[in-house]
Amino acid sequence: MDVTHDVARSITALPSELAAELAGLVGGRISTAPSDLYVRGKGECYHPSFPPDIICFPETTDEVAAVVRFARREQLPIVAFGAGTSLEGHTAALKGGICVDLSRMNRVVDVRPEDMDITVEAGVTRKQLNAYIRDTGLFFPVDPGADATLGGMASTRASGTNAVRYGTMRENVLSLTVVLPDGSIVKTANRARKSSAGYDLTRLFVGAEGTLGIITEVTVKLHGIPEAVTAAVCSFPDAASAVTAAIETIQCGIPVARVEFVDAVGMEAVNRFANLDYPVAPALFFEFHGSPSSVEEQAERAGEIALGNDGSGFAWAATPEERSRLWQARHDFHYAIMALRPGARIWGTDVCVPISKLPECIAFAQADAALAPFPVSSLGHVGDGNFHMSYVIDPEDADERAMAERLAERLGHHAISLGGTCTGEHGVGYGKAKFMTAEHGDAAIALMRLIKQSIDPDDLFNPSKILP
Amino acid sequence: MDVTHDVARSITALPSELAAELAGLVGGRISTAPSDLYVRGKGECYHPSFPPDIICFPETTDEVAAVVRFARREQLPIVAFGAGTSLEGHTAALKGGICVDLSRMNRVVDVRPEDMDITVEAGVTRKQLNAYIRDTGLFFPVDPGADATLGGMASTRASGTNAVRYGTMRENVLSLTVVLPDGSIVKTANRARKSSAGYDLTRLFVGAEGTLGIITEVTVKLHGIPEAVTAAVCSFPDAASAVTAAIETIQCGIPVARVEFVDAVGMEAVNRFANLDYPVAPALFFEFHGSPSSVEEQAERAGEIALGNDGSGFAWAATPEERSRLWQARHDFHYAIMALRPGARIWGTDVCVPISKLPECIAFAQADAALAPFPVSSLGHVGDGNFHMSYVIDPEDADERAMAERLAERLGHHAISLGGTCTGEHGVGYGKAKFMTAEHGDAAIALMRLIKQSIDPDDLFNPSKILP
Repeated sequence: MDVTHDVARSITALPSELAAELAGLVGGRISTAPSDLYVRGKGECYHPSFPPDIICFPETTDEVAAVVRFARREQLPIVAFGAGTSLEGHTAALKGGICVDLSRMNRVVDVRPEDMDITVEAGVTRKQLNAYIRDTGLFFPVDPGADATLGGMASTRASGTNAVRYGTMRENVLSLTVVLPDGSIVKTANRARKSSAGYDLTRLFVGAEGTLGIITEVTVKLHGIPEAVTAAVCSFPDAASAVTAAIETIQCGIPVARVEFVDAVGMEAVNRFANLDYPVAPALFFEFHGSPSSVEEQAERAGEIALGNDGSGFAWAATPEERSRLWQARHDFHYAIMALRPGARIWGTDVCVPISKLPECIAFAQADAALAPFPVSSLGHVGDGNFHMSYVIDPEDADERAMAERLAERLGHHAISLGGTCTGEHGVGYGKAKFMTAEHGDAAIALMRLIKQSIDPDDLFNPSKILP
Repeated sequence: MDVTHDVARSITALPSELAAELAGLVGGRISTAPSDLYVRGKGECYHPSFPPDIICFPETTDEVAAVVRFARREQLPIVAFGAGTSLEGHTAALKGGICVDLSRMNRVVDVRPEDMDITVEAGVTRKQLNAYIRDTGLFFPVDPGADATLGGMASTRASGTNAVRYGTMRENVLSLTVVLPDGSIVKTANRARKSSAGYDLTRLFVGAEGTLGIITEVTVKLHGIPEAVTAAVCSFPDAASAVTAAIETIQCGIPVARVEFVDAVGMEAVNRFANLDYPVAPALFFEFHGSPSSVEEQAERAGEIALGNDGSGFAWAATPEERSRLWQARHDFHYAIMALRPGARIWGTDVCVPISKLPECIAFAQADAALAPFPVSSLGHVGDGNFHMSYVIDPEDADERAMAERLAERLGHHAISLGGTCTGEHGVGYGKAKFMTAEHGDAAIALMRLIKQSIDPDDLFNPSKILP
């Protein structure tokens, strides 16, 4: 891998006796190979890499705690790393230091089908988790697209296509094991489905992006695999009609499992990429879960709502094969639109607004980008009011990068002005820290800072993330 | 009201110039009447009253902030009060000081049916809220039984009978306005259904019982009133069969809206109290929400599961009148079992365990109380693994009080040993602070204490609550 460009900081090698001491804490599992350091500091984002100075690969919570105590003694920054699928520079070692790579903490600790929950180490990925429980009749629904680790998903409060039905990581994490900056190990909660016993430590760490501690174990809720699943695609004359149909579906209380919006540019890209022939027009992708009669009823009612909003060609996919082809098209979106332009990369952003503001917010985003010299596409988990803009830019063109950044910035502020958030699911990292004061206000930011300072007084844990 | 006994602290009158200054901050709305003070320090609990020294009745968030700044300057403890329906001494002014009674902050700020959310002042009660939105086709589901205020419900992370379907306050609060101990006013979040933008300040205050700030406004999710509702009661030969049926109903993914367990003692009490003729045997009360065909299907499947667990007499209540009579019986439970013994009061406790541990935990609670000289009944929101024990004691009998306390204490610890919590929905107050270390461990308690100290360094906000 060529790591000579796209690197925004120079590596400072640890003195060899310190590196040796660190290695001793984790059974010798460290790396200082430049390509390894590059990857850890990069993620899947459009930001340059800020490589850490050294990577260690602990295999137990106690090893993580030992590394944390070491980092504290030496006052070295410490950044946790899972699968590296984050999008806003979450794993960038802005101030260097130690990357704690949790990929070797990939064991399933305990699965309890009778309680519909599972405890895994932080480095287990969602696909690995679902493969493990394949025979239990249960599944873990949170699906951010990438095969992220559970620790990473908890840290960014991830969600995805079916959060509208099953919730995000906020709702699905029951408990966490966390190593705090002082080296102590906290279990944030028991496994009861509800509790009124004290501060919600679980939710303190869900979404904290490793700035308050390192998550080493995650206990999540599981859900029953639905007896029946159906899916459908429907085309609309314009984005507003499609989004309005989605909103009405939610407002009517149809317990839709997924309702995804893809604009005309995206549909054309998907057709080309996967050799399909969907109408080149804004579309909604639906999925319904339940009993056979219930999914039929849900689909019928959603179909009526779509028709009432000038939807056409409500195309059913009742068999697993058809359904999987349909959703493959949706899942290919990212690569399909990237393929619109050879050599291009995607500058992506996501916002989330109260659902009634969604048509206005999408219209703003599309109009604002209308004159952009690069392809632009919008895609949304619209049942939650959440959508993504993808700016398909030439990564070597500074003007295009600057324009994409400006468009994303204007969109973030517009979403905030509509009572929404600058990020529904990507997280803040350092890429979106600039929005935080506008979104939360000075008093809330001061409170977040107070929490950060009291738990991590030396500012060693993923420094310069989240807070502006 | 006779306030001479059942009072555990003596009132210290504020110097008159301070009382006058406080009155000036809230338009003269203060009280020092002993009966008012008694009620504020009592709640609906079995603990004695710890009256505050003075009560003020702010009408705006700014007035609350002014009172907080005053309290801080004078280093006076400050305890928020809503409807006074808490059960573990949450509103007891253990160290005296100012009671901030939020009952005059009872306005609906904004209702947005199109976004299915509503913002109310903290003193609005749940019945008032639901009356206000009666014509929107929406409702607010969280129902702890008592007509609590939204601020109080958020503060204790309340839930109730239909949390199994609609979630607790943890899942239903979108945003809070909170006055912090430093007098600043924080809005914890925007109204987007999901967000990854920073620390989850909302969940920091949900369940914090007024120890970190005073909630003055609450924004909650609303849900569509289901098109169809049906209910049923089913009797079982023993508690274990009933609870197993409830567990299987959940495990099968039937989206039951309510599934409540009442033991034989409770059913007999309800029969007597409301002149009904249900079989005197452990029972499950079900409620199903959905489309007409979906509720029929749910009820059918739940009925089959009940039959498979030796349930009998699955009694339908399809009409609103029958349903309301059925649920009235369930709602009368508290008064019905109190009526088993003239002059008695209920010492109540609640625990919550992973659902598979529920039969064992209920069996423990019943066996442990088998020799008690007073009536004992158990009742549960069993779909969540949550149940209540009611010890029907003579409040003047110190031995009975001591025995009830001992039984509750043993049950709390047993629930914790099963991976559960000492309280699923009542909260900690000061009554359950003794369980906190056993439940959470030293490191988690130290973290909670750190949060408390950093946000409320003078320990003025509801002091000596939650933390041991």
